[in-house]
Amino acid sequence: MVDVSTLSAALPDGMVVTDPDILAAYRQDRAQDPSAGTPLALVRPVVTEDVQTTVRWCAEHGVPVVTRGAGTSLSGGATAVDGALMLTTEKMRGIAVDTATRTAVCKPGMFNAEVKAAAAERDLWYPPDPSSYEICTIGGNAATNAGGLCCVKYGVTVDYVLGLEVVLADGRAVRLGGKQLKDSAGLSLTRLFVGSEGLLGIITEVTVRLLPPQAPACTVVGIFPTVHDASRAVVAVTARTRPAMLEFMDSTSINAVEDLLRMGLDRNAGAMLIAQSDAPGPAGAAEIALIEEAFHANRAGEVFTTDDPAEGEAFTQARRVAIPAVEKKGSLLLEDVGVPLPALPDLVDGVAAIAADNGVTIAVIAHAGDGNTHPLIVFDPTDDDEARRAQLAFDQVMGLAVEMGGTITGEHGVGRLKKGWLPAQLGDDVMDLTATVKNALDPHGILNPGVLL
Amino acid sequence: MVDVSTLSAALPDGMVVTDPDILAAYRQDRAQDPSAGTPLALVRPVVTEDVQTTVRWCAEHGVPVVTRGAGTSLSGGATAVDGALMLTTEKMRGIAVDTATRTAVCKPGMFNAEVKAAAAERDLWYPPDPSSYEICTIGGNAATNAGGLCCVKYGVTVDYVLGLEVVLADGRAVRLGGKQLKDSAGLSLTRLFVGSEGLLGIITEVTVRLLPPQAPACTVVGIFPTVHDASRAVVAVTARTRPAMLEFMDSTSINAVEDLLRMGLDRNAGAMLIAQSDAPGPAGAAEIALIEEAFHANRAGEVFTTDDPAEGEAFTQARRVAIPAVEKKGSLLLEDVGVPLPALPDLVDGVAAIAADNGVTIAVIAHAGDGNTHPLIVFDPTDDDEARRAQLAFDQVMGLAVEMGGTITGEHGVGRLKKGWLPAQLGDDVMDLTATVKNALDPHGILNPGVLL
Repeated sequence: MVDVSTLSAALPDGMVVTDPDILAAYRQDRAQDPSAGTPLALVRPVVTEDVQTTVRWCAEHGVPVVTRGAGTSLSGGATAVDGALMLTTEKMRGIAVDTATRTAVCKPGMFNAEVKAAAAERDLWYPPDPSSYEICTIGGNAATNAGGLCCVKYGVTVDYVLGLEVVLADGRAVRLGGKQLKDSAGLSLTRLFVGSEGLLGIITEVTVRLLPPQAPACTVVGIFPTVHDASRAVVAVTARTRPAMLEFMDSTSINAVEDLLRMGLDRNAGAMLIAQSDAPGPAGAAEIALIEEAFHANRAGEVFTTDDPAEGEAFTQARRVAIPAVEKKGSLLLEDVGVPLPALPDLVDGVAAIAADNGVTIAVIAHAGDGNTHPLIVFDPTDDDEARRAQLAFDQVMGLAVEMGGTITGEHGVGRLKKGWLPAQLGDDVMDLTATVKNALDPHGILNPGVLL
Repeated sequence: MVDVSTLSAALPDGMVVTDPDILAAYRQDRAQDPSAGTPLALVRPVVTEDVQTTVRWCAEHGVPVVTRGAGTSLSGGATAVDGALMLTTEKMRGIAVDTATRTAVCKPGMFNAEVKAAAAERDLWYPPDPSSYEICTIGGNAATNAGGLCCVKYGVTVDYVLGLEVVLADGRAVRLGGKQLKDSAGLSLTRLFVGSEGLLGIITEVTVRLLPPQAPACTVVGIFPTVHDASRAVVAVTARTRPAMLEFMDSTSINAVEDLLRMGLDRNAGAMLIAQSDAPGPAGAAEIALIEEAFHANRAGEVFTTDDPAEGEAFTQARRVAIPAVEKKGSLLLEDVGVPLPALPDLVDGVAAIAADNGVTIAVIAHAGDGNTHPLIVFDPTDDDEARRAQLAFDQVMGLAVEMGGTITGEHGVGRLKKGWLPAQLGDDVMDLTATVKNALDPHGILNPGVLL
């Protein structure tokens, strides 16, 4: 066992924690990977230099370092390995909004909601909105290229990251990009680090682009007899317009949310779609009409339209709490598979078939407008056979997505939970290319080992 | 001298060209780098396998390979080195627009204008629009992360590239990304290859995202007494809205264009701004009013607004032909410097001071809305002293941009012409990181040597 006292001595008092009770709270993320190891210690850096000192010490002692934002990873991206240092960015806080360049320079421990709020205070908007936006950090968002509900029109995290400060595997800190909107000088290293899941460096600052505030959105909710009808309606909408939001919930998730919130959702619905348009004036009215038409044309039993923001937000909130709501029904295996949009109805049908074949419950929610679904496999962890069948279904859903030309992860990242299926999607040559980049930037493999590769 | 006959034998008849007259036409790009070398041969692959055969042969014989789209690089990104193979993608043609996924799969030799046209035929839109869009290729656009006029609102090439096929330095062909809009599986290799200027691999296919067609744009033209006033107007506009276009021309470029087109531009103007709004309905009217107000508040002598698309296009065309128009006045050293937007007036003033100090003419055009300027240094190449002073001014403009926290290249790439200034912008550690990635992916340095590094 490596002695951390030299690291403790090199950092401010109390920054290195070895109390086993505290370590226990940091060894797993929200994916609750049962194979998580026992960390050597926890480091809570405040400034970039603390991160550099930590990484240099890790490099010198051959100690792995696992970086953690708020631990909301759903794929085990921030899970301890035995003998690793856990590095939490929770004390790296601060944000400076610059209205002139319409950017915000954020320390990694800022919550996504805080970035949004700081932007909103200056009448600006930071669009990316993972469902966990109130409890996930901007550093973690950048490290995983997080998505959300607005992506269908406004893109994902990488579309907003203009600059990064990153601590490399040898402890050097580099600044990539900056506040300028267009910059072709050198390789696209900023974009390479976004979504690199802690494998290439530790993100210590994120400069994001902000937009003028979003126009008030109008919401259309459609209730469908089957998931197939609803997913056909999605394709009908996206073939003709680009809504500001287009979310999907199946019957299981609707009922789980209704159990939790008692908001009057239709428990008999086969599926529900929640669409929004933020196009102003007549263009918005035309878009809403088009969405309503696509819903009706695909057998929607009820179509409800509102331009009351509070009413719209209530439905959005219903969608956002779907994962915690379904989680109350049992343990979850969380999928994040995506397919090119026209394949969405077949994917949804295929997931239903996999659920039936394996005798397990799979709730399906989706950022349907960009083909990104979250089948949630519910199981009783004390029932070994059900747990086995759930795992089988988990594998089969990813296999199905890959077979359909899609992805095993649209926005959660590969982490530790999905790495077994990555080669099937990427192929040996791309895996090899991935390893080449990883090995070049982290030759001793100290950064988040066991993730992705 | 390496014997190319084994390569000729391995490829279809006539694909390898050694005729010196033909080679001469391919050794330089539009930057006309006088230090361009003499290539060994030219290869005109048709399919990916031809590229693989060529690269494998190059790897085996240690022969460098310089990839060329249409040779429109303004920074010497496609310039021969002695003994290199020039590989042109001009015969790699074809495009498949998929309306269901709203994507287009393009072979690299397709012109940008052809991609736009193919999309438009299916009532879709490919936004990126370098001024050279009629004569530059989509493969070159991806390799340089090309920009254009619409970027201020719609982003640059990388924002549209969903997938690539790339031939690596060892001849393997890999597929990165695909048609799905969201994909977090593995490192962001697709984005790493976009803008990599031929250093990491050869792009043999590009899958781009398409948008619904752009709404008709309304155009506002402002005539200003000085470049300073115009650039202040730019900052006033961008602080409050995100126009669909915001272009800048100074007096020299206005007069050069007027000499060429005789379209009635104001020869006495200090500067001209051309702005567009494509926001629909009342939102568009509000945006136009805001732009007009910002122009008037910054001493615009005349403000002309039109919703006639043909009239708007005439002004846009004036801006697009500025580089060839100024080129008629002498040889050009072409800048592409960018700064964070509030620094734009100071940059423009600084460029004027540099022109005066060195006794050279510098015409300034700019994609002003994203802080990206093109100072065009005009000189007589037969006048050694003027050529020397032009080079001095070229250096000083890049130095100024770096000093102001900006970039030496917003959209043209570093190529060969700007690599001397790249370390000043990026710093030693980022240069080292760049070299690490390059060496990992191209250990023998056969891909476009002499560019960027």
